[in-house]
Amino acid sequence: MSSADSSSQLSIDVNADVGESFGSYNMGNDEAVLPLVTSANIACGFHAGDPSVMLRTCELARDFGLRIGAHPGYRDLSGFGRRAMFYTPAQLEAEVIYQIGALQAAAKAVGSRVCYVKPHGALYHAISQDKSAALAVFSAMLKVDPHLKLMAQAQWPVLEWARAAGLGTIAEAFADRAYNPDGSLVSRSAPNAVHHDPDVAAAQAIAFATGSGFRAVDGSTLYIQADSLCVHGDNPQALALVAHVRAALADAGVSVGA
Amino acid sequence: MSSADSSSQLSIDVNADVGESFGSYNMGNDEAVLPLVTSANIACGFHAGDPSVMLRTCELARDFGLRIGAHPGYRDLSGFGRRAMFYTPAQLEAEVIYQIGALQAAAKAVGSRVCYVKPHGALYHAISQDKSAALAVFSAMLKVDPHLKLMAQAQWPVLEWARAAGLGTIAEAFADRAYNPDGSLVSRSAPNAVHHDPDVAAAQAIAFATGSGFRAVDGSTLYIQADSLCVHGDNPQALALVAHVRAALADAGVSVGA
Amino acid sequence: MSSADSSSQLSIDVNADVGESFGSYNMGNDEAVLPLVTSANIACGFHAGDPSVMLRTCELARDFGLRIGAHPGYRDLSGFGRRAMFYTPAQLEAEVIYQIGALQAAAKAVGSRVCYVKPHGALYHAISQDKSAALAVFSAMLKVDPHLKLMAQAQWPVLEWARAAGLGTIAEAFADRAYNPDGSLVSRSAPNAVHHDPDVAAAQAIAFATGSGFRAVDGSTLYIQADSLCVHGDNPQALALVAHVRAALADAGVSVGA
Amino acid sequence: MSSADSSSQLSIDVNADVGESFGSYNMGNDEAVLPLVTSANIACGFHAGDPSVMLRTCELARDFGLRIGAHPGYRDLSGFGRRAMFYTPAQLEAEVIYQIGALQAAAKAVGSRVCYVKPHGALYHAISQDKSAALAVFSAMLKVDPHLKLMAQAQWPVLEWARAAGLGTIAEAFADRAYNPDGSLVSRSAPNAVHHDPDVAAAQAIAFATGSGFRAVDGSTLYIQADSLCVHGDNPQALALVAHVRAALADAGVSVGA
Repeated sequence: MSSADSSSQLSIDVNADVGESFGSYNMGNDEAVLPLVTSANIACGFHAGDPSVMLRTCELARDFGLRIGAHPGYRDLSGFGRRAMFYTPAQLEAEVIYQIGALQAAAKAVGSRVCYVKPHGALYHAISQDKSAALAVFSAMLKVDPHLKLMAQAQWPVLEWARAAGLGTIAEAFADRAYNPDGSLVSRSAPNAVHHDPDVAAAQAIAFATGSGFRAVDGSTLYIQADSLCVHGDNPQALALVAHVRAALADAGVSVGA
Repeated sequence: MSSADSSSQLSIDVNADVGESFGSYNMGNDEAVLPLVTSANIACGFHAGDPSVMLRTCELARDFGLRIGAHPGYRDLSGFGRRAMFYTPAQLEAEVIYQIGALQAAAKAVGSRVCYVKPHGALYHAISQDKSAALAVFSAMLKVDPHLKLMAQAQWPVLEWARAAGLGTIAEAFADRAYNPDGSLVSRSAPNAVHHDPDVAAAQAIAFATGSGFRAVDGSTLYIQADSLCVHGDNPQALALVAHVRAALADAGVSVGA
Repeated sequence: MSSADSSSQLSIDVNADVGESFGSYNMGNDEAVLPLVTSANIACGFHAGDPSVMLRTCELARDFGLRIGAHPGYRDLSGFGRRAMFYTPAQLEAEVIYQIGALQAAAKAVGSRVCYVKPHGALYHAISQDKSAALAVFSAMLKVDPHLKLMAQAQWPVLEWARAAGLGTIAEAFADRAYNPDGSLVSRSAPNAVHHDPDVAAAQAIAFATGSGFRAVDGSTLYIQADSLCVHGDNPQALALVAHVRAALADAGVSVGA
Repeated sequence: MSSADSSSQLSIDVNADVGESFGSYNMGNDEAVLPLVTSANIACGFHAGDPSVMLRTCELARDFGLRIGAHPGYRDLSGFGRRAMFYTPAQLEAEVIYQIGALQAAAKAVGSRVCYVKPHGALYHAISQDKSAALAVFSAMLKVDPHLKLMAQAQWPVLEWARAAGLGTIAEAFADRAYNPDGSLVSRSAPNAVHHDPDVAAAQAIAFATGSGFRAVDGSTLYIQADSLCVHGDNPQALALVAHVRAALADAGVSVGA
């Protein structure tokens, strides 16, 4: 889905990270969040998830008619993939191939398929800054399935790099996060980083879907068109926010879907 | 490949476990053994192997024109998959799906594909005795790719179970191991378990390929027709034995191939 | 603490498995259960727990004045140590030495020490049935610190084996579980396995502490003297039960402590 | 051992990284190198080593009368601890406590003890540059055993930081590596990084032991007094070099020992 397409259809995708449980360890609330999204970023067993969780999450995603995405991360279960690690491009390519393939098999086993790749945590940030890391991820995707799209943050150059490499892209944005005037997210450590008012989040979501302006943290007007909203479902407030945003999108004539 | 086919063609496959290195840890001598075999059982990262090793091993297998097989094992790197572990069938199915998928992606990335599955170590033995474990492995294979064949020891009932489940099979046998009159292997702890005479191994290999008789450990004559010879390449003697057996097969008019 | 000692003092210890979180994965509710117990069985990083969790849990145990025990398990994080695995006695001894040592250092770092060892999950059951496994655990304990006591289920022969090996023992029993007439626990799969009536649990706890009789599942009277009650704190009902049992013990003149 | 002490005694320690095997994976040649050294840096199971290997290596070290050091690393078996990873100081402290404790128990089990800590790989480099990482390691050491010494590269500021924190230190140097005029090692990627002439290595070792000058890579004279020589034993040439250096030290009246 290109930004142009999503604009002409007045539709937007909604994605969430799911399948992050591991063995006896539960994380998140997948049963509650999956009915509210249209794309499922499924962890692949390196930073989170395990083969049984992946299979069960693919089943749920299939049952809810969701688009399945691979959510690969660094091989760092104890750090949940959030710690920067030094990988050579060759190692990174191999580890992304492995993780995509493992999820492809789980999706195939339940009659579905993997449509996109959204790197997780420290890897998500690495590909935004280190072009050699980004190219390694692209190479993995192209070798495994050239139809895979890259999901990354709207306005990051990695999306352009991906298109230059021949990949489709999905630009994601965050309805409940404040943005700096340059289109970057306000750091979580800042006091105004998160929108607690559901109406502000809803308005921002509509702006992402329609390409209209919204208010950056400094009061200026910002324009970010996005293909997908990234949401969280790990607590009741987060779930209520997603439901509120979806209702507001519907009221504004924006359909939700991948 | 059915036994009947291999017999009529007077050909036999030669397989070896490869891709067992992990990170900085080298195991085996893949560069030396791969030119001597026609099927490569590639570890999938649970009991051995890692994503980089899998990719490199798939490249070598492709370059040598080998058939690629997945060699999944228990999630037990420290025990090399040789320790019996209790898995529920559902866990086992999910972990085999995961491992096959990871290797499929590596094979796809180098322009090849996975053709068969040979469980490793304790899992290999589990499916020979525990039908619920065997059915879990079959289910994983059928869900991921119903054309995958199961490789297991000739004369084990698991091969019949697999065919009843709709899977193709590859019966493997061991040229350098002594057999009991019932077709089982003489235990490695017994003094005569291994044939050190290359000519005995070669004669046994020819017998497997042609369906002619060979001598069991008690002197009786045994008939085991096999689709594939399992060989090892981790030391110079083992490599020399494989070369000797292949030369003897050629002299006997038996071609080698998958 | 021998059974004789605990009887003469009319006191009983209360223990719980804690420190089972791992990285970003939370498990249990240690902050709530630790104030209610007198001994803390702390996971050692193989089946659960990690170095940071161990250190924090030792700090909490120290702050609450608890006795610290090592809770070693099989090297099986994805199975939470509940899967039977085949270990040689030498491997088992080495892995228990490792886990005890790691916890000793965490305890030392906060000014405390490890006083006992309670094997976890499948290892707990293994030492109750396989004397070679039990002897391997004893050997590990004796080599690291001969003052370590073994905690295991009251009436299991492993407690006698441990005493014969020169180790002190802590016999534990379960206030909220129904017992068979032979002193074994009613299987959790049976309908009457768990006492939901807090008063029944409290009466059973008093019986363990005083050596008086309580009712087995078949209505017969059973006598089990125990040194410690094993409790759980992973849900509000469990925590309420522990509080009720402790109040009942106090009313019955039984002090609680290690 | 301070530099002054080692100088007045004309003695020098010889250390090597050992105990790096893992499960079925062998690494190094510990049986060959241990008779040639006086201090053994034993991996602790995070980047390399496992509980059985640690116990066996402690036994060998005890049998050869060696000083045992903990060789902790990042939790990155697949990267062998050589990849930079971002740890908070609190995580790092906890993981170093854990690893030291695990080795202390193994050493205790064979009647020996841990005397020093030499961080491995990327962690070794981290503490040379990142004072917060160094302080986390020092804190771990002080909390577990304040008599533990820190082993690190001669002339690195981390040795001063350690002494300021109250720790003893062991300055190590490399007989077979070329040095820059500022006392740093010539990068392995440079053509002259390694001394292939055993006599050059022997002369450099004597210079480290006696405080006399040796030739830096640019021909200038450099003075580095060291407490310990770091050697490798993973190939026959390396072992021969160590034997040659030890013989030369003996000829020069320098005794070898911790």
